[in-house]
Amino acid sequence: MNPVFFIREKREGGKHRREDLEAFLLGYLREEVPDYQVAAWLMAAFLRGLDPEETLWLTETLAYSGKVLDLSGLPHPVDKHSSGGVGDKVSLVVGPILAASGCTFAKMSGRGLAHTGGTIDKLESVPGWRGEMTEAEFLERARRVGLVIAAQSPEMAPLDGKLYALRDVTATVESIPLIASSIMSKKLAAGARSIVLDVKVGRGAFMKTLEEARLLAKTMVEIGRGAGRRVRAVLTSMEAPLGRAVGNAIEVREAIETLKGKGPQDLLEVALRLAEEALRLEGLDPGLARRAWESGEALEKFRAFLEAQGGNPRVVDDFSLLPLGEEFPLRAEGEGVVQEVDAYRVGLAVLALGGGRKKKGEAIDHGVGVYLLKKPGDRVAGGEPLALVYHRSRGLQEALDHLRAAFRLGAEARPLPLILDVV
Amino acid sequence: MNPVFFIREKREGGKHRREDLEAFLLGYLREEVPDYQVAAWLMAAFLRGLDPEETLWLTETLAYSGKVLDLSGLPHPVDKHSSGGVGDKVSLVVGPILAASGCTFAKMSGRGLAHTGGTIDKLESVPGWRGEMTEAEFLERARRVGLVIAAQSPEMAPLDGKLYALRDVTATVESIPLIASSIMSKKLAAGARSIVLDVKVGRGAFMKTLEEARLLAKTMVEIGRGAGRRVRAVLTSMEAPLGRAVGNAIEVREAIETLKGKGPQDLLEVALRLAEEALRLEGLDPGLARRAWESGEALEKFRAFLEAQGGNPRVVDDFSLLPLGEEFPLRAEGEGVVQEVDAYRVGLAVLALGGGRKKKGEAIDHGVGVYLLKKPGDRVAGGEPLALVYHRSRGLQEALDHLRAAFRLGAEARPLPLILDVV
Repeated sequence: MNPVFFIREKREGGKHRREDLEAFLLGYLREEVPDYQVAAWLMAAFLRGLDPEETLWLTETLAYSGKVLDLSGLPHPVDKHSSGGVGDKVSLVVGPILAASGCTFAKMSGRGLAHTGGTIDKLESVPGWRGEMTEAEFLERARRVGLVIAAQSPEMAPLDGKLYALRDVTATVESIPLIASSIMSKKLAAGARSIVLDVKVGRGAFMKTLEEARLLAKTMVEIGRGAGRRVRAVLTSMEAPLGRAVGNAIEVREAIETLKGKGPQDLLEVALRLAEEALRLEGLDPGLARRAWESGEALEKFRAFLEAQGGNPRVVDDFSLLPLGEEFPLRAEGEGVVQEVDAYRVGLAVLALGGGRKKKGEAIDHGVGVYLLKKPGDRVAGGEPLALVYHRSRGLQEALDHLRAAFRLGAEARPLPLILDVV
Repeated sequence: MNPVFFIREKREGGKHRREDLEAFLLGYLREEVPDYQVAAWLMAAFLRGLDPEETLWLTETLAYSGKVLDLSGLPHPVDKHSSGGVGDKVSLVVGPILAASGCTFAKMSGRGLAHTGGTIDKLESVPGWRGEMTEAEFLERARRVGLVIAAQSPEMAPLDGKLYALRDVTATVESIPLIASSIMSKKLAAGARSIVLDVKVGRGAFMKTLEEARLLAKTMVEIGRGAGRRVRAVLTSMEAPLGRAVGNAIEVREAIETLKGKGPQDLLEVALRLAEEALRLEGLDPGLARRAWESGEALEKFRAFLEAQGGNPRVVDDFSLLPLGEEFPLRAEGEGVVQEVDAYRVGLAVLALGGGRKKKGEAIDHGVGVYLLKKPGDRVAGGEPLALVYHRSRGLQEALDHLRAAFRLGAEARPLPLILDVV
C-alpha cells in the first residue's frame, strides 16, 4: 500500500481494497502514515464518499484497533446509542428497564460536547458515582447488576479517537459514513450482541433533516449487520428538548421520576420504545419493558447500579442530595400557546450557565440547568413562568437571552410527532 | 480566519476571500497553520476547484512569500517557462536568440525530475558552469550579458516550495489551478515583464491531452495578465522527444549545433516561435529572432553566457570537452517507417541510465543519454541503428528495453503537428 496511490484512488472516486484501507489506517495508528496524508484522504473520502463495504471495513478497522470486550457469556447483552440531543437522559431510563427485563445492559458512554449533554456527566452529579473502571470491574458489574455504564475507555477503538480528533480540525466531521463508522466502531468494540440506536432529528440534533437522519440510521444498521450484530435504529424528534429537565443533576432527577412513574410522557415513550426494540432483537417479549417499569423493578435496578459504581443510592429517595443552583424563573412576555421550544437554544443556554463544555476537558457544573415548565402545546398566560433556570450567577443573562429566543408562542398548538421512523 | 471554517468553505464549493486565503497560506509558511489542515484544504481545492480570482490570489501569495526581483530597469526583460518534456533544450536556444535580439533573458530554472530533464542539470555538464549565484550577480549578468540562467533560489517563493512538497505526498499535484499557480508564482517573483510559456502536450509531457494543456495555458495566461504581466503560451507536441538528443551534455551539444544552424528542425521551430512571441509581447519586431540566429549573434551570446557563469566557452567549438558515456547502438529488429518514438519511454531510458533523478537531490551523470538516429517519418531498414545509447554500464539493459518499446514502425508516416496552438 503506497499512501499517495491510496489517497489518489479515493480522490478519483475509486473503491479501496480492504487490506489497503486497513494498512493505511493502522499505519496512521502506528504513526507510520503521517497525519497530513490521512487529512488529505479524509477530505477525499468526505467529498467522494465511501460505499457500504468500505464503510464496514473502516468501522471494523477502528473497532479492532484496541481492546475488544467479550460479553458473549452474559445473558442478552444489549447496548444503546444516541446520536446526541438536548435533555436526552434516555439511557438512564432504558438501561434499568432492560436490566430488569432480563438483559445485560453494558454500555460505554461519552461526555457532553457543545450544546448536547453526555450520560457520564449526568451520572457524575450523583455523589460518589464513578464511570471509570477496569475491564474486570465492568464485566463483574454487568454480570452481577445487569446494568453498567462506563466512561469510554481510551484503550478501546483508539484509532477512532485519533481519527476523530483529526476530523475535528480538518473540517471532515459531517460525513455520514465517517460519523456512522465512528459510532459503530465503539459499539462493536463494546461487545453487545444487540444494539438499539436512537437517531435524533431536528434543530437540537446533529442531523437536522429526516432524510439525513434516515441515511445515518440506515448506514449504522448496515454496518452492524455486516459485522454480525443485531441492530435497530429509532428516529426520534429533537426539535424540542426531551422531557422538561436540561442539565445534569436535574436530568438524573427527571430520569428517577420517570422510573417512579411520575416523569414526562415523551421521555417514557422513547425509552419504552427503545427497550421494546432491544427485547425484540434478543427474541424476548417486548411487553417485558413496560412490566419492568410498572412493577418498580427498573427503579430498583437503577438504585443497585448507582451503588455498584460508588454512587449514593439514597438520591433515588432524596433529591436534595443532588447539587442544585439558585432558581430564577423566566416569565412569558406575551401569551398564547407554545409552538416551539428550540432545543438547540436551550442547549446553548445550559452551556452558557456552565452545564456543558465548549471544548473537551473543560470542567462543568452539575447543579445548573433549565427546567421547562411549558412545552409545545401548553397554554401560557402573560407573566406566567415558562422555565426555571438553575444557575451559579455565571452566564445567566446569556442563558435568558437564549431561552427567550427558544420559546415561540402562537394561536394554536401544532402536534409534533415524537417517534418518526424505525430503520 | 478560522482554519476549520476556511477548509469547510472550500469543501462546500464556496469562494474564499483574498485575505483569508493569504492568512491561511502565510500561516502555513510561518508554521502557525499545521500541514494536516493545509493537506485537507489542498484536497478540497483539488476536488472543488479554485476560480480565476482565487487562483490569482493564490499565485500572488506564493510569489510574494519571499524575495522578489526587480528587473524593471533592464531592457525588455523576458522570461520563458516550459511545462517539462523530454529532450527539451529550448531555453538554451531561445535565451541566446532573445538576448541577441535586444531583450534581457533572465531566468530561474529548476532541476529535472522523473522522466523530464532540467535546464540547470543540462548546463552543469559544461565544465565550470554554475547556476548558483547571488542576487547581485544575477542582476549584473542580466545587465552585462543580457542572458542569465540561475538555479531556482530557495529564497524566492518559499511558500511554493513548501506547498509543492506537501502536494507531492498528498496526491494533490495534478490540479490545473495548483499547477498554474505554482509555475506562475516563480515567474512573478523572477520579475520579467513578458513571459512566454511552452506548454508541452502528449505522452512525454505532464499534460497528456490538448484539452487539459489548453486549460493550463489559459489559466497561466490569465494569472500573468491579472498580475500585470504580458504573457503568451505556445502549445507544442511532446509525443516524441524534441530534437534528437535526450540527456544532459548531449542536449547542450545539440543546442549549440542548433545555434550554429546545424540542429534539428523541430527544436529550431519551437525556439524561434517562442522568441517571436516574446518579441511581440515586448513590442519588438518578431523578425529579429531569425536574424539573431542566422547572423551567429545568438551563438556568441551563448558563449558569453557560459563564460559569465564560470563555464568553459570553448565547449562551443570543441564538444570533446563535454562528458560522454560509452556508445551502444540500438538496432531495428524489423523495418518500415517510424510511426512513433514515445517520449515518455525515452525519458525513462535516460532515467535508467542515471541521467535523471527519481527523487529530489539525487546525483546524475551528465554524460549518459540517448541520441535518436530515427524520428517519426524516417524510413528504417532491418538491422539499421535506431539510436545511440551513451551509458556507463549502469541501467543499459533497462534503457534498451524502454527504447525498444518506444519505437513503433509501420507502413507509412503520419505527419505530426509540432505547434498545436497559441493562447
